[in-house]
Amino acid sequence: MFDLIPSGSVTSASGFLAGAVHAGIKDKDELDLAILCSEVPCKAAGVFTNSQIKSAPVILSQKHIAKGRAQAVVVNSGCANACMGGQGLADALGMANLAAAKLGIYPEEALVASTGIIGVPLPMDKIRAGIPKIKPTKGGGHDFCRAIMTTDTRPKEMAVQVDLKGTKFTIGGVAKGIGMIHPSMATMLCFIATDAVVSAYFLRVALQKAVDRSFNMVSIDGDTSPNDCAFLLANGLAGNEPIDFDSGGDFQEALNAVCTHLAKSMARDGEGATKLIEVIVERAEDQAGARQAARTIASSPLVKAAIHGNDPNWGRIVAALGRSGARVREDRLDVYLNDVCVVKQGCPTPFSKGEMISALSNSDNVLIRLCLHLGDGQATAWGCDLSEEYVRINSGYTT
Amino acid sequence: MFDLIPSGSVTSASGFLAGAVHAGIKDKDELDLAILCSEVPCKAAGVFTNSQIKSAPVILSQKHIAKGRAQAVVVNSGCANACMGGQGLADALGMANLAAAKLGIYPEEALVASTGIIGVPLPMDKIRAGIPKIKPTKGGGHDFCRAIMTTDTRPKEMAVQVDLKGTKFTIGGVAKGIGMIHPSMATMLCFIATDAVVSAYFLRVALQKAVDRSFNMVSIDGDTSPNDCAFLLANGLAGNEPIDFDSGGDFQEALNAVCTHLAKSMARDGEGATKLIEVIVERAEDQAGARQAARTIASSPLVKAAIHGNDPNWGRIVAALGRSGARVREDRLDVYLNDVCVVKQGCPTPFSKGEMISALSNSDNVLIRLCLHLGDGQATAWGCDLSEEYVRINSGYTT
Repeated sequence: MFDLIPSGSVTSASGFLAGAVHAGIKDKDELDLAILCSEVPCKAAGVFTNSQIKSAPVILSQKHIAKGRAQAVVVNSGCANACMGGQGLADALGMANLAAAKLGIYPEEALVASTGIIGVPLPMDKIRAGIPKIKPTKGGGHDFCRAIMTTDTRPKEMAVQVDLKGTKFTIGGVAKGIGMIHPSMATMLCFIATDAVVSAYFLRVALQKAVDRSFNMVSIDGDTSPNDCAFLLANGLAGNEPIDFDSGGDFQEALNAVCTHLAKSMARDGEGATKLIEVIVERAEDQAGARQAARTIASSPLVKAAIHGNDPNWGRIVAALGRSGARVREDRLDVYLNDVCVVKQGCPTPFSKGEMISALSNSDNVLIRLCLHLGDGQATAWGCDLSEEYVRINSGYTT
Repeated sequence: MFDLIPSGSVTSASGFLAGAVHAGIKDKDELDLAILCSEVPCKAAGVFTNSQIKSAPVILSQKHIAKGRAQAVVVNSGCANACMGGQGLADALGMANLAAAKLGIYPEEALVASTGIIGVPLPMDKIRAGIPKIKPTKGGGHDFCRAIMTTDTRPKEMAVQVDLKGTKFTIGGVAKGIGMIHPSMATMLCFIATDAVVSAYFLRVALQKAVDRSFNMVSIDGDTSPNDCAFLLANGLAGNEPIDFDSGGDFQEALNAVCTHLAKSMARDGEGATKLIEVIVERAEDQAGARQAARTIASSPLVKAAIHGNDPNWGRIVAALGRSGARVREDRLDVYLNDVCVVKQGCPTPFSKGEMISALSNSDNVLIRLCLHLGDGQATAWGCDLSEEYVRINSGYTT
């Protein structure tokens, strides 16, 4: 049970401040350098890209967060600071040091994140000039959100409030990232801030759980970035009874809701996307099979292109299922497109193609549901259609 | 050592005939039903889709080829005969029976293949009327090639001749398939006919080897079809000394050349493609890692879109490598784009972006080469760029 906070942001929870400036890392006059900080030290958890090529900020933040504590995050957009060797690590550390000096905190309690082009040095002169100009405020969450955007066309943020035995706590989150998105960890930047009192170990497990069922189930283009990370900071200012495994149900539910909302917002805002695709796989042999099947279908270029053209070509859904690795018995398979049954026990069922095309044309959300009739595995994945615009955006990103 | 046969086709080897008709399975007035046959029974080998959803012709042909013998292949385009339950199996068997009756061979020695839309019944009346009209001839290889095309824009065929201790044998091959192409078996239709005398077991192993390093290294869109198959028929009419493992080097080399040519032709003719992308991974930890890395890079939508735009955005190549699962040490990684070094020991090396863009703009073949400096694994994969045209083709395939 939780309540949505209207116009909520990553600074909705008590004691969190944020601010952003245009430091000039991006050519365009847009916010590109931002800080999120807490008035007091936080328990902290992080989930990072599982790419073997990790950006310098990811390597540094993994080290900083290992102790389970942090008080601030400093982020830039426009430059990924990846594939820059020792210089990249020195620059990421420089960013942490500059933010720590500005805020009066320990450098090891500053986390760093970068997003943008790979293989370009971080313009440290601009970072050095920019960080002192950032003025973190209570209302700065929305600016922080805008500052981390790259090809995103819409901000992605949400906050919810939970009443835990009469004491209220808040979870606010923000995310960016609409290209190089594939279920293989967060594949984007995500920052979540809560004032709840939470045990450190539970915090880590809860974040991993929420990421697994939200960001790890989103695919835009099958690519994973070296910069992906999700951070969760808990400053404890809500003063609730400490939350742990035995009492964490409401916290987990609210955290899942924030992460799922951000994940779906990413899919909906996928590069060039015009539709959100939701793929639900039911009664798979097991959970792993359900996840595999849902993710494979949501990321199939042929399925995505068909949905873009409002083409009820369910053969591509079945073909993607067949190669997903999940166990399938063709003679038990049912497929539904926007709740209309198109395949029953592996064979086509008659449906009005004209009506289906017009229904698809009118829906921003397309629902693909499969029932495998093999076990009790169930999973949901999200993706988006594949448009000519995706190709246009991505064929000249650095030129 | 082998010689290319000018204007070679699948009927270049002695004793093979082919023919095709327009049976009306496709709306357009194009050849859509074809037979390839041998004057005498052949040893036969097949490699099939590893999708769990297999089309009826795949299921039937797997059964027929299990004995290692075949004398003909009957193929239609325009309808995949997949996801049609028992009716689909009955129709595939019907096709085999009709072809066998026409040719006077055993039905179990007729292989069947179909390609086209999934989930539509095979128009058996048209098949029944069409098969008797097919007139297999020595020069019919090119017609056979055209009859199996769907979205292909160019025929894909090749024949080579090998001189084995003074006796000549020929290998001719033909393939189709430019969508739903991903390294996970042939992911297309391929038919190879040779007059060589070859041991049955060696034939099977040689085909699998050739497919692994050719068709299984091609990716157009990451999708695998339920209909993919590659057949190799050997009728022994060349009268050479029987080829087996100890003497099969020349045969394997020639077979690899035919399969690689057909595979590269598929990538070059990929739906909407304007460029062939060749990815060579050298000095990977092992062979499996090299294959994984090469295939992942060749199939990354972001890499493909960048190449389409002549954008030397090598960060995407490195990002795809990072998530491929192959072991990578960033500080040992070298990357070359069209033979220009762009990354040395994990860091960018200066290169003229203007010259690179103009070189990419002028090349139909883009070469991406990575040296991992970890072991002796090496592999080559082929793909194509991702264009707006791919989306256009695939967003209205059945509508």
